[in-house]
Amino acid sequence: MKSIDVCLSPDLLHLYDVKGKMVVVVDILRATSCMTTAIAEGVEEIVPVATLEECQALGRQGYVTAAERDGKKADGFDLGNSPFSYRNGAYRGQKIAVTTTNGTYALTKSKEAEVLVAGSFLNIGAICGLIKEANLDTIILCAGWKGKVNLEDSLFAGAVCARMSNHLAPACDAPLMAKAMYEKEKGDMMSFLKESSHVKRLHGLNIHEDIAFCLEQDVYTDVPIYRNERLIKA
Amino acid sequence: MKSIDVCLSPDLLHLYDVKGKMVVVVDILRATSCMTTAIAEGVEEIVPVATLEECQALGRQGYVTAAERDGKKADGFDLGNSPFSYRNGAYRGQKIAVTTTNGTYALTKSKEAEVLVAGSFLNIGAICGLIKEANLDTIILCAGWKGKVNLEDSLFAGAVCARMSNHLAPACDAPLMAKAMYEKEKGDMMSFLKESSHVKRLHGLNIHEDIAFCLEQDVYTDVPIYRNERLIKA
Repeated sequence: MKSIDVCLSPDLLHLYDVKGKMVVVVDILRATSCMTTAIAEGVEEIVPVATLEECQALGRQGYVTAAERDGKKADGFDLGNSPFSYRNGAYRGQKIAVTTTNGTYALTKSKEAEVLVAGSFLNIGAICGLIKEANLDTIILCAGWKGKVNLEDSLFAGAVCARMSNHLAPACDAPLMAKAMYEKEKGDMMSFLKESSHVKRLHGLNIHEDIAFCLEQDVYTDVPIYRNERLIKA
Repeated sequence: MKSIDVCLSPDLLHLYDVKGKMVVVVDILRATSCMTTAIAEGVEEIVPVATLEECQALGRQGYVTAAERDGKKADGFDLGNSPFSYRNGAYRGQKIAVTTTNGTYALTKSKEAEVLVAGSFLNIGAICGLIKEANLDTIILCAGWKGKVNLEDSLFAGAVCARMSNHLAPACDAPLMAKAMYEKEKGDMMSFLKESSHVKRLHGLNIHEDIAFCLEQDVYTDVPIYRNERLIKA
């Protein structure tokens, strides 16, 4: 039986070996929820970059630019970090350059994985289908919040571990922790998230609807997969 | 209201500032359970050291030496890492030098805390009493397993967060995660721990009784506190 592991923060990634494995990067609020939405809504490719400067440089090459820092849209960019920007095929056929506080960092740290995808509740069923199909040892990499663990990414990791429990064995204790927390809180994740200071801060930015949308499961059946430095439809 | 935070692994400690705070180091299996037992059973002082060599050097100065690596007693030392070694006042009045895989490392990384103590289920009530008395922002530092998170230390952190929920506000998401997991699994922590590969490995070392004892709550009312490079009775 292949294994499933959970890396609760990119600051723990040095303890994990991603080579030869499938890695699912998750930043529920909101980078990978955005990526899922964008790809499912017809965006041709997404180039995740670490810095605002790289994002601007791609903008000069014709990319639509999406940039978020500390939950807010960065000045001078086309888009922030809301999945609603991409709905109804608003950027169908276009190329997006994106940089966010946590999510793009986690992606760029996992480039050596055999299969690297962006996961979210929005496409969790498709992610689990791809994990079964790939049949590799799998790591869920939580983007966290500036190095610290966060509830929403850990809940997603726990949800995947719960869905895959008959197919993959836990590689260490982190999958068991994430699964126990998910099973405790799955009935009302929104109420649980409201206890989080980090989510409270996001609520203060007036993105309640974003948060509610990002917790919906199986809205899309597409998976953004990382190939040649960009995310495309798997 | 003062805050409570949880650092799930020493490899995340760079994200926390321990200065001016109370830090509770926890390595349930078994370093801080041993320290709790030893101090409660009359040991005069415990000097935690990072290396086997430092431990041996203190042995030559008359210290009883306790050394564990990967769950096993290291060759050439007086004791391993079992709390039963100290029961019935077996080392009353003596001084112990101790080095373990995870627990002593976590302690030595937290020396700049205002108040630094060793916690375990065995003295959890006394720990909570001291947290109330100290009235400082508090961090529970989980020793983990070689940098990774583990169930037993996270469960302890969650148990403290649950007991202190009317007195301390969660500083970030880690306390909420630990508390949710503890509340899900508190009814039968032993069965939950048996899913852990790391605990399975310890079971293979024939320390079932140690594990059961280390999960007992409020066996002792003493707290080992760190002062001048050693743990003494608070």
